[in-house]
Amino acid sequence: MSLPRSVELVEVGPRDGLQNEAQPISVADKVRLVEDLTTAGLRNIEVGSFVSPKWVPQMAGSAEVFAALTPRPGVTYAALTPNLRGLEDALAAGVREVAVFAAASEAFSQRNINCSIQQSLQRFEPIMARAQAEGVRVRGYVSCVLGCPYQGEVRAEEVAPVAEALMAMGCYQVSLGDTLGTGTAGATRRLFEVVGARVPRAQLAGHFHDTYGQAIANVYASLLEGIGVFDSSVAGLGGCPYAKGATGNVATEDLVYLLQGLGIETGIDLDLLVAAGQRISAVLGRASGSRVARARAAG
Amino acid sequence: MSLPRSVELVEVGPRDGLQNEAQPISVADKVRLVEDLTTAGLRNIEVGSFVSPKWVPQMAGSAEVFAALTPRPGVTYAALTPNLRGLEDALAAGVREVAVFAAASEAFSQRNINCSIQQSLQRFEPIMARAQAEGVRVRGYVSCVLGCPYQGEVRAEEVAPVAEALMAMGCYQVSLGDTLGTGTAGATRRLFEVVGARVPRAQLAGHFHDTYGQAIANVYASLLEGIGVFDSSVAGLGGCPYAKGATGNVATEDLVYLLQGLGIETGIDLDLLVAAGQRISAVLGRASGSRVARARAAG
Repeated sequence: MSLPRSVELVEVGPRDGLQNEAQPISVADKVRLVEDLTTAGLRNIEVGSFVSPKWVPQMAGSAEVFAALTPRPGVTYAALTPNLRGLEDALAAGVREVAVFAAASEAFSQRNINCSIQQSLQRFEPIMARAQAEGVRVRGYVSCVLGCPYQGEVRAEEVAPVAEALMAMGCYQVSLGDTLGTGTAGATRRLFEVVGARVPRAQLAGHFHDTYGQAIANVYASLLEGIGVFDSSVAGLGGCPYAKGATGNVATEDLVYLLQGLGIETGIDLDLLVAAGQRISAVLGRASGSRVARARAAG
Repeated sequence: MSLPRSVELVEVGPRDGLQNEAQPISVADKVRLVEDLTTAGLRNIEVGSFVSPKWVPQMAGSAEVFAALTPRPGVTYAALTPNLRGLEDALAAGVREVAVFAAASEAFSQRNINCSIQQSLQRFEPIMARAQAEGVRVRGYVSCVLGCPYQGEVRAEEVAPVAEALMAMGCYQVSLGDTLGTGTAGATRRLFEVVGARVPRAQLAGHFHDTYGQAIANVYASLLEGIGVFDSSVAGLGGCPYAKGATGNVATEDLVYLLQGLGIETGIDLDLLVAAGQRISAVLGRASGSRVARARAAG
């Protein structure tokens, strides 16, 4: 067993998290969340998404959030840009890192974005070209890497070519997402073994949802496979712990707690992180989805 | 990595779980819970505790529960017996397996049971002798194995002699409990490495609480160390997921989900187990503490 000495966290709460909360929140609250997160030591934050507010009202005002942020040195503020229109809006807002996403499941791609995986990758070509021309980095997401709501099981062999294609198109990193949260530790290890044979592991990230309570174990399994970048969401934003069908990202607090326990550097102050999570949970009017935060509040 | 091919679960919900729920429930509801659990395939169930109902009102009526049970072949119905009086009551109720517990932390032992670890072990001697004379098996618990609310960190070197002493006194198995839930995967592995050098790993069990969201990862870490017996609590009984200070055992459902994902045999029917957990959660008037149960209820 040889674990990474340090791990980089990509905080997706302001985007993947808030996008899946029922209630949109104000631009000021979003800005405060991002500021709190950078104060806690996070250096990679996915701030918003440039999509039609008709589709995703929770992501309305992303340009205003970017405009209101005071950028801190060494911090990357990224945005999801599903299409060229979104990229243009992001560029106009001064965004310097964007993300695109494809599915590992053909059934999910068809039902979710109404095209094949191959077609979705082709649609990224103009985005990649434009981003490259602007010197903007692009991160790739692959969803449904350990399970799909429509096709069920997803094999690592289906994930590998999608990850490889995103790298070949110019992504600097590909995040493999168990967006359904059904994956377990053994499948996670196999995923990184198989995909890692085609994409360098240093370019891979793990993105786990805690729907079935497996996310922390899956992170540990990933660490054992040499993965050193993980996505997470402060307070487990995106999956209300009390609601049916909670599907949230693993809580950043719980992930940092694991990493600290393993002696792995993250550069994050857990107390400040917990405070950031408690504040945004109060804004949303719900308890934190982080068990660490709840245990500390009780202690 | 070589995982066990099969794992034995010790269901502690009716005892460790219900003991830590605010509301005592009826004997009939306890009996139904135990029957539901055996129907789901559990073969080791800690049914109750023989202690003064003044101290632990939730455990009142344990004798009545044993009297009302219809024993099934191959199922062990155990009881916690902290003292000789409790053992005599358990024997009178026909109990054939009992459990005793000691702490790995001197500070916890003093504050919780008002004596040193050594003294607590001496007090077990008449219990062990009487149990042996009756041909009744005794299981040992060690609490605070990865952390103590009073002394903080607990080293594996402090746990090993307590586990070894319990084995030397005649326990057939020792369950190492991270009762505070603060442990992480690396410390868990080290715990079993150190204790496993003095007690055969086949005689050790893992008992994890999910207070900090680490329990499933700690089980996975234990599996990697060759541990094949785990304690858990259906519906995460003992730690209300919505309350501050939730300190419950790992939910049996989430543990079985992990083990099934790893291809490890448990003999348990997850659907029936989830149903058992939903029923007892309804009796208690709260949502299940199992993420698997909540995800399934939503799906």
